[in-house]
Amino acid sequence: MKLTILIHCADQPGIISSVTRFIHKKKGNIIYLDQHVDKEAGVFFMRLESEFEQGIDLSGFKSDFDGELAKSYQMEWGIYADGIKPKMAVFVSKYNHCLYDLLSRYNSGELQVDIPFILSNHPDLAYIAAQFDIPFFHVPFNKDIRENAEEEQLQLLKQHDVDFIVLARYMQIVSTKVIDVFPHKIINIHHSFLPAFAGAKPYHAAFERGVKIIGATSHYVTEELDAGPIIEQDVTTVSHSHSIKDFIAKGRDLEKIVLSRAVHLHVARKTIVYNNKTVIFS
Amino acid sequence: MKLTILIHCADQPGIISSVTRFIHKKKGNIIYLDQHVDKEAGVFFMRLESEFEQGIDLSGFKSDFDGELAKSYQMEWGIYADGIKPKMAVFVSKYNHCLYDLLSRYNSGELQVDIPFILSNHPDLAYIAAQFDIPFFHVPFNKDIRENAEEEQLQLLKQHDVDFIVLARYMQIVSTKVIDVFPHKIINIHHSFLPAFAGAKPYHAAFERGVKIIGATSHYVTEELDAGPIIEQDVTTVSHSHSIKDFIAKGRDLEKIVLSRAVHLHVARKTIVYNNKTVIFS
Amino acid sequence: MKLTILIHCADQPGIISSVTRFIHKKKGNIIYLDQHVDKEAGVFFMRLESEFEQGIDLSGFKSDFDGELAKSYQMEWGIYADGIKPKMAVFVSKYNHCLYDLLSRYNSGELQVDIPFILSNHPDLAYIAAQFDIPFFHVPFNKDIRENAEEEQLQLLKQHDVDFIVLARYMQIVSTKVIDVFPHKIINIHHSFLPAFAGAKPYHAAFERGVKIIGATSHYVTEELDAGPIIEQDVTTVSHSHSIKDFIAKGRDLEKIVLSRAVHLHVARKTIVYNNKTVIFS
Amino acid sequence: MKLTILIHCADQPGIISSVTRFIHKKKGNIIYLDQHVDKEAGVFFMRLESEFEQGIDLSGFKSDFDGELAKSYQMEWGIYADGIKPKMAVFVSKYNHCLYDLLSRYNSGELQVDIPFILSNHPDLAYIAAQFDIPFFHVPFNKDIRENAEEEQLQLLKQHDVDFIVLARYMQIVSTKVIDVFPHKIINIHHSFLPAFAGAKPYHAAFERGVKIIGATSHYVTEELDAGPIIEQDVTTVSHSHSIKDFIAKGRDLEKIVLSRAVHLHVARKTIVYNNKTVIFS
Repeated sequence: MKLTILIHCADQPGIISSVTRFIHKKKGNIIYLDQHVDKEAGVFFMRLESEFEQGIDLSGFKSDFDGELAKSYQMEWGIYADGIKPKMAVFVSKYNHCLYDLLSRYNSGELQVDIPFILSNHPDLAYIAAQFDIPFFHVPFNKDIRENAEEEQLQLLKQHDVDFIVLARYMQIVSTKVIDVFPHKIINIHHSFLPAFAGAKPYHAAFERGVKIIGATSHYVTEELDAGPIIEQDVTTVSHSHSIKDFIAKGRDLEKIVLSRAVHLHVARKTIVYNNKTVIFS
Repeated sequence: MKLTILIHCADQPGIISSVTRFIHKKKGNIIYLDQHVDKEAGVFFMRLESEFEQGIDLSGFKSDFDGELAKSYQMEWGIYADGIKPKMAVFVSKYNHCLYDLLSRYNSGELQVDIPFILSNHPDLAYIAAQFDIPFFHVPFNKDIRENAEEEQLQLLKQHDVDFIVLARYMQIVSTKVIDVFPHKIINIHHSFLPAFAGAKPYHAAFERGVKIIGATSHYVTEELDAGPIIEQDVTTVSHSHSIKDFIAKGRDLEKIVLSRAVHLHVARKTIVYNNKTVIFS
Repeated sequence: MKLTILIHCADQPGIISSVTRFIHKKKGNIIYLDQHVDKEAGVFFMRLESEFEQGIDLSGFKSDFDGELAKSYQMEWGIYADGIKPKMAVFVSKYNHCLYDLLSRYNSGELQVDIPFILSNHPDLAYIAAQFDIPFFHVPFNKDIRENAEEEQLQLLKQHDVDFIVLARYMQIVSTKVIDVFPHKIINIHHSFLPAFAGAKPYHAAFERGVKIIGATSHYVTEELDAGPIIEQDVTTVSHSHSIKDFIAKGRDLEKIVLSRAVHLHVARKTIVYNNKTVIFS
Repeated sequence: MKLTILIHCADQPGIISSVTRFIHKKKGNIIYLDQHVDKEAGVFFMRLESEFEQGIDLSGFKSDFDGELAKSYQMEWGIYADGIKPKMAVFVSKYNHCLYDLLSRYNSGELQVDIPFILSNHPDLAYIAAQFDIPFFHVPFNKDIRENAEEEQLQLLKQHDVDFIVLARYMQIVSTKVIDVFPHKIINIHHSFLPAFAGAKPYHAAFERGVKIIGATSHYVTEELDAGPIIEQDVTTVSHSHSIKDFIAKGRDLEKIVLSRAVHLHVARKTIVYNNKTVIFS
């Protein structure tokens, strides 16, 4: 049995020693340990993977961890057993490249999640959901029907016991109500190298500015648009010879790769959010 | 003898055919031709290198080119014979990495320019100028002595017949007077992936935002700060484990490489500026 | 109507001028021209796109081109009208990531080809062909049935009038008979940065050697294994912390992106092969 | 006071716990800990930085570490106090770009080493040593004088108490005698993406093969040519339009950056060699 432990707390001497001694006492073998100290903020972060050959009583382990360690160090922590697939909802609009990419990874077992449903504000991509045999819900969205739409989204998410949401080029702002229920559990892909070109039509803006490199950014969604904690970014070169259409085509490949990397990191519990930034254990 | 020809004009049929026929008639062999059409703006750009085995009367060639081609197509053009080294002034402040990099390229013959002088608003880097045996002028700059400083800069540039200026981490805004005399002939290196983090302290801003990639941008200086035509950009990955000091250290390598690439492109006459953007023939 | 013209021939003065004059005379407007001279080999290469507002008699155009230009310059050439989709056969084995990527691009109209069939030496991926509603042929292959298999492949390719073949992680050597019928028309993806780690199990070899970067290479298939003209390469960083399994996972993303770029270049007729190398007009 | 501790030993439960408890007991605060397990080889690696506010008796610390920890776990280990600059000899031939780059980093305090001397088999770069005021020794090398040259090299290295050697494009094979005295303490830069194009003239070989990416590799020197443990690699794109001369020019920038990164990693004691591979703590 394998456990993954994520911790953050005020930096103070002896944490690593205490945690590793605890694991050792529980007859676990540490197979991965990575830690980080944000010196400015004075915060300590740790990710640890441990194998327990003889199995373990998970709730007992958690309560011992809480009592013996977490309370005295005032840790925020999570302990996760392997083998449990998180439930991932996918929101899309009309672009299909990110959706296809996620679903092909899902179908081949590369992405260890369950996908209870795909939701869209447009009916266009229902055929892809059908190709991969996944429920598809068309929830239209505009100012007039906003509250109903939010309600419908929340109900679907609750009914299906969704753990996190991936916005695979969902061209609609997610409402605060949904964000509040899924704090740092909504992953978006923005088609620019943030913070450059936040907002609408970033490829057009990049073309206008004459940049020589374009990018894509995957981040957790927060209330402020395109300003949440960045998980992953990547770039590709462009030149004067590329049109906006070329930017968009080159960008598609970036977007799907960057989004899938972010989803992988999230699923593998390699991300901790602090101060609107991420610590990524890789 | 080799000529490099740069042209731009309104896009219209027959330009390439006319120009290549002209070169052929002059007994030139075209060894490089690259062209670009900005379809939105309706502008045609061309760069052409041609060898003339029997030599050529340059001023006659230019006047024929003007009369037979440039006037009818309303071209803006430049014709440059090889073997003439442009005169490059280098402006610095206190950081030495870009200066060292430029001077070592200059010293080894990699950078085909003359460097009549290095100018700085601080005396700190005079020792490097001495190492490489290049005149160094200390021209202090602050609000109170601004006009005098500008005047002194302009005189030095004029006296030494400077063709273009490289700001090798010159931490002072170049005055409009100097920019007007050197339009698209001042090359700056900005230590961010523009347009992200324009202005002061970009590494601090990048750290604050939690980006996963940092960049450097070389551009022609225009009146608006950090908003001139971009010549070259490059990036490098960073993570939560990097401090601002690490960003600065990683950035130094980016800055010097990106700046030197831009200087090379400018010297090789591979850049045309149009609409605050560059066409880069590479 | 738009034509794309590809030319190569011995380098000699006046080619560009002659070709552009020919296009001009035919009332074409050149919208793209790129040329390259391989100075060592003394060979001239050109790619040209031209628009003909009044349409054109294609076979008359070709025969004039041949008579007026190609013969005197001894050109090898191709002239291609737009709007005709090439027929692309896809060969696979058991890995699905490249296949999924190609099919999703095909399905969304990004990849302008027809796919008459998918062929595999294993039955495993038939379900993907079914998802995308494309005929799937299972043609087993081993030493004993080699001749029959080759024959069956050739028949299928002929019956469906296939223009080119993509080996999307087809783990079987393509026979010389097939290569001979499709010279420089079979595109393979090899999962290493060639010429490093040619042959079997490149990720294992890369891991063993302790490299810090892994790559993928798309190339035209020739008789010599993994030694054909390279179309496209890309790389990604790895570290000591990555296992062979991690190499394979990171490699999957590289492979599918590199292969799809190569296919795009081939379909857009941006490749010319010469001397076992490619000229890529991009 | 800060200590850096490097450890490797057979993987076994409890190591991290034991080491961190030891540090804690010595009143150290761990500011960095990174570990790696090579599962195939069954080897555990750790790098740890610890601050001791009250200072420390280094030799007592080492002997306690050895007695209480290292012996029972059969560790190979090193403990290094900060503030001690290693002595780095630089070997060069005729190319100056790597030398200039190292010396400018040294001169600006970026590279925390002492440079007792520069050694070359040619006199050409003596002027650069003079520019930076560093002793320069011309030690010619050819088959006939090989033994004398090796002897002279070894004497110089011994006299100046050299800790490690950087081959900054030293175009001569280092003799086994020298390698034996400096095991994994000689850093070379090879101008290709190893293992592709080992040996002489890699840019010519890369050009011949028609690769689309070229690279540079920094590695520890071992007896087998270009086959030592890789420390750092990087690449840059090339195309058909680049000549061998262009490859060499682009390569220069790669070489100097990759070499300097490797030297930085070595100086910061972020490298452990095992099984002809490196673990790089970054």
